[in-house]
Parts: sequence; structure tokens; C-alpha cells
Amino acid sequence: MISDAVIWELINNKTKPIGALGDLELLAFQICRRQNSLTPKITNPNLLVFAADHGLTDSGVSAYPKAVTAQMVMNFVAGGAAINVFCRQHGIALNVVDAGVDYDFPAGLDIHHSKVAKGTQSCLTADAISTKQLDACFEYATQHIEQLRKTGCNLIGFGEMGIGNTSSATLIAHYLTGKALNEITGKGTGLDNKGLNNKLEILKQVVSYHGHIDSPEAILRAVGGLEIAMMTQAMIAASEADMLVMVDGFIASAAALLATRLSPTCRESMIFCHQSEEPGHKYILEHLNAKPLLTLNMRLGEGSGCALAYPLIISAVEFVNKMASFESAQVATKESAKPETDQI
Amino acid sequence: MISDAVIWELINNKTKPIGALGDLELLAFQICRRQNSLTPKITNPNLLVFAADHGLTDSGVSAYPKAVTAQMVMNFVAGGAAINVFCRQHGIALNVVDAGVDYDFPAGLDIHHSKVAKGTQSCLTADAISTKQLDACFEYATQHIEQLRKTGCNLIGFGEMGIGNTSSATLIAHYLTGKALNEITGKGTGLDNKGLNNKLEILKQVVSYHGHIDSPEAILRAVGGLEIAMMTQAMIAASEADMLVMVDGFIASAAALLATRLSPTCRESMIFCHQSEEPGHKYILEHLNAKPLLTLNMRLGEGSGCALAYPLIISAVEFVNKMASFESAQVATKESAKPETDQI
Repeated sequence: MISDAVIWELINNKTKPIGALGDLELLAFQICRRQNSLTPKITNPNLLVFAADHGLTDSGVSAYPKAVTAQMVMNFVAGGAAINVFCRQHGIALNVVDAGVDYDFPAGLDIHHSKVAKGTQSCLTADAISTKQLDACFEYATQHIEQLRKTGCNLIGFGEMGIGNTSSATLIAHYLTGKALNEITGKGTGLDNKGLNNKLEILKQVVSYHGHIDSPEAILRAVGGLEIAMMTQAMIAASEADMLVMVDGFIASAAALLATRLSPTCRESMIFCHQSEEPGHKYILEHLNAKPLLTLNMRLGEGSGCALAYPLIISAVEFVNKMASFESAQVATKESAKPETDQI
Repeated sequence: MISDAVIWELINNKTKPIGALGDLELLAFQICRRQNSLTPKITNPNLLVFAADHGLTDSGVSAYPKAVTAQMVMNFVAGGAAINVFCRQHGIALNVVDAGVDYDFPAGLDIHHSKVAKGTQSCLTADAISTKQLDACFEYATQHIEQLRKTGCNLIGFGEMGIGNTSSATLIAHYLTGKALNEITGKGTGLDNKGLNNKLEILKQVVSYHGHIDSPEAILRAVGGLEIAMMTQAMIAASEADMLVMVDGFIASAAALLATRLSPTCRESMIFCHQSEEPGHKYILEHLNAKPLLTLNMRLGEGSGCALAYPLIISAVEFVNKMASFESAQVATKESAKPETDQI
């Protein structure tokens, strides 16, 4: 095992003031540490978008109708969504996983068919996910990661599509961070103030119905989305396979926090990509001790933050591998140089 | 001239909630507006690094000796600096401009030789730059941009290398924003607290020596760097040539603020790339009404923020050109959809 000190020596000897590349240096350290390598590399990068529907949408918690989940999956397949554009830009392979969309997709589409149910039960009056369904989510997740591992992939971005899933993520944030719902409930993809008030009221009723729950599995069963459950286990499996895990925004971070509760060491694999304006996100990030690479005021999901942050990850790898050292470039360091010495 | 409303209609009809791509949408709007096009494109992107030395370094305002400016220029030429790595990663052409380095570079190096002087005079006891030298800086700047324009370049990133130039930028920020020196003087590339106190004391003496000055030209003569002066005019010339201007961190933003004082319309061309931790930067950005794309806690210069933010600019262009519209993808909008309608 390469020591932390040796990795930092490599980074600190690059021709720049100590720490001058800021967060990119922390990222480089994390990647070297994760890969146990002083010559890190990213191979066959993939992005997984998990899609599923939510029974709670019947209570009007989203600005968009549930049908949009399936429509956007078709848009992913056709290549016209934001995440398609950004993945193509950076050569990231995009995988769309039907974890539980309430629609029968035609055969022959480029979709990973892992439909556990046609959406969740409404968590207002029942557990969203049964024990058997949760097991199936975890099983599918493990299989997807194993498939990608076999292709030589060592970095996976995690995104989602599911109308209503900010409600699920907000409830997860409430249970895991202890923050009150009125502090963390936001407008999702575009509720107005009236819609936000309704959403908050509904979420309070959900919490009242379920009473005290605290285990990650119990939380997922009570209020989870099928896409969130599958993402949670997929992050764990990717970490166990020594991959790097790119975490998108609010929903993906809720899954990431669940994953770290189930398997604390997987935090070491996680790179947080985008800070969302959704109010619950900052509390989840605090619990994960995470500062995302980007803060672009986006609220899209789809893994868009992962794809946009990806070139920064490559930059971290590139500077480690390709920047000159002080010695090789004959540049004076702060310590070695005297003001009057011309070392050229 | 394409109207603002038509550009926003194009952006808003992409298959995403209104505003869901956040700052990337503002960027896309700016690029369409600047290019007066609904099919924007970036051609032959270049990065200019202006290098020069500062007489004030004799007073110990930097953690590094002046000789490092020339050493880093040699490192740029050899391809081993951070900016080389990041420009190669993204296919950005790197141009190193010797605006006034205190070193005689050998002939035959890939450097634009525009040396106006071997560094500035110390602004502690004289004007840093003479009127004749300032004219020469502006002349060289205009020529460099004209050369790049002829190659079809329509986007230029602006960076710098100059030991001691946070002092110059801090003084410029003081004169242009009215902020007191003790609010805006920072540690540059790595002063300790004692060094910071010395720097602050020196800068106060500089301000005391020069008395009241307020025109951009007078500020540049009194406390400017040759690289900052050249960058200022180059930004103006690039904007006048209808190019997009990527502005790096603290030093480049000081030049950008000077440029907008000399030519207010050039603000429309400017894309701010990295928010520095240097305390004066946020005040300069306030005066420019700018929110940089990245906040990575870097303090390197060299145009590194421009190169790292560049893929986000391409992402903005790509989503405008390549994302499906709601109509083309048959996805329901918030307005068009009814909760019970399955539109697939």
C-alpha cells in the first residue's frame, strides 16, 4: 500500500506552489489513494441513470406528471436529453436502467430491464417498497456493477430520473440527518409556492404515518424509490470493486448517504459532482463531509452533474501524470530559492 | 439581430424543466447573444499567458523569488506546467507572451517576444510603467489579438505569470473598488502571516506615495504590471473582434475590470472562470456583476481556471445545438401535461 505521504510528495513536487491547485489536488489524492497508484488512470467511464416512478406523485408533489419519467427514458434512448449530449461530449458510456418505471417499454430498446415494480406504492398509506422488492433492487444493482467491472470500467457516475423523487430524497434526508421537513423541503424541478406548501404537508403526513424508523433498509422500504434503492447498492458494489463513484446532485447524494450508512468505507470512492439548490442537499453533504466540484445552480438530475464534472476528474489524473516536477523543470521552490538567485 | 426572447425560447424548449441547467443556461444565452446565433460554435480556442516581472518584488511581497517568472516561462515552453497539461487535455492552443520578464530568453523558443521592459519599476518609489511603455503594451496586445482573429479563433482565455502580481492586482482592486487594503490584501501564492503583514505595509506605502489616481490608464502606469496592461487591452481587442473572453482568477479579473472601465461593452464577451480565495477577488467580481463557473480553491494563475472551465463552455454550446426539444422528443411540459395523461 502506497503511503499518504508518498502521494502528497508526488503532488507537492509538481511545478506549482503547494496547494495551488486547490480542490483538484484533494481529488488527485483521493484517486491515487483509491487506485493505490502514483500513475492513476480512468478506464471505460460509464454513467448509470436509474429510472423509476413514485406512488406519491398521485398526491401532487411534483410540477410534472408521472408520465414524464417514461417519456424522458425514451428521450435518453433517442439520445436527445442533456445527459446524452454531455456523455457524448466526454466519451462516457451511458446506461439507462429501468428500475421501476410505470410503463411497458417496447422490446429492443437500449435499456437495462430491471423493473422491480411499476413504480412504488404511495408512502402516504403504505411502505413504498416491500422487503422482496428491496432485495430485488439490491440484486439487480450488484449485477449491473459486475457487468461494468468486467468491461474494465473503473469509474461510474450515478444519476436518476423519477418524477416525484425529490420527495423521496427529502424524506430520506429527514430520517438520516434529523433535519425538520420545513427546513429541507424544496421546489424540486419547479413547484410554485402553493405546490411547495402542498408537498411539505404531504411529506409531514408521510412521516406521521411511518413513525420512528432509522435503519437504512427500513428507510428505503418506507419512503424509498426503486431507483434510489438500486443506486444505493450499486454505489456500494462499485466501491467494493475498487471503482470511483461520481455522485450527482440531491437524489444521488441521498443514495450516497444511505450507502455510507450501510458500508462506511464506500465514502472513500465517492466524488461529489454538483451542489444542488434543493435545501436538503447541503445537510446531506455535511453528513458526508463533502464539497461538490461544481455549483452551477442546476436542478436536473439525470447524472448531469457527473458528466459535467468528469473533465475535472480527468484534469486531476492528468496533472499527476504529466506535470513536471520542480527538479525536472529546474524551477525554484519557495524553500530552495533565495531571492537573488537566478537559477536558470 | 436575433432577439433575446428568441434565444430564450430555444433554450426553454429543450427537454428539461425551465432553468434546470442553471448557470449553463445563462452561459448558453451569453454565447448565442455574443455570436448572434442560434447555432453557436467555438472555433480554434486559444489561451494567452502574459508573463512579466514586478519591481515591487524587491520589497519581499511574494513568497517566491522573481527568477521563478522566467523559470515558469521555460516550463510553459517545455510543456510541463499545469496550464500545458490542461490545454492539451482540451485541445486549446497555448500562447506564451513575454510582456516584460526580467530575463533574456534564448532565440528560437515558442514565445511571443513582446518584452516592453525587463520588469516594471518598483511602484514604491516611481510609476511602475511609463506612458511610452503603456502604449507599447496596448500596441502589442492589439497585434496579438489580430493575429489570432486571422486564424479563425473566436474564444480566448487570459492568464498570467508574474511573481509579485497579486500586489499589483490588489492595488488595482483598491483604486477601482474603493476597498481598504487591509480588506483585500491576501497571501498570494503562499505568504505566511508575517509575509502578509509586510505585503500590506508595503502596499500602504505605495498608495501613500501615489496619492489620488482614478483613470484606468493612470492606475496601470502607477501600479500596473506589464502583463496586466497587455491583458487589459487584449481583452478589449478580443471583444471588439466579437470573440468570447475567458477570464481566469484574481489578476485576470483585475485586468477585466480595467478593460470594462475603458470599454464597457467588453463585459458582454467575458466569461469568468474561477473564483479565487484571494480576498480582493470577490469585490472585483461584484463590480463586474460576475459569478465564476468554478470555485475550486485554486491560486495558481497561468490561465488554469480558463482551461478547466472550458469544457463547461463547450457543454453550453452542445446542449443548445444537440438537445431535443419538447416537441421533437414528445415529452410533456409542465404547462402542456395533465397528471393523468400518458402521452407516449
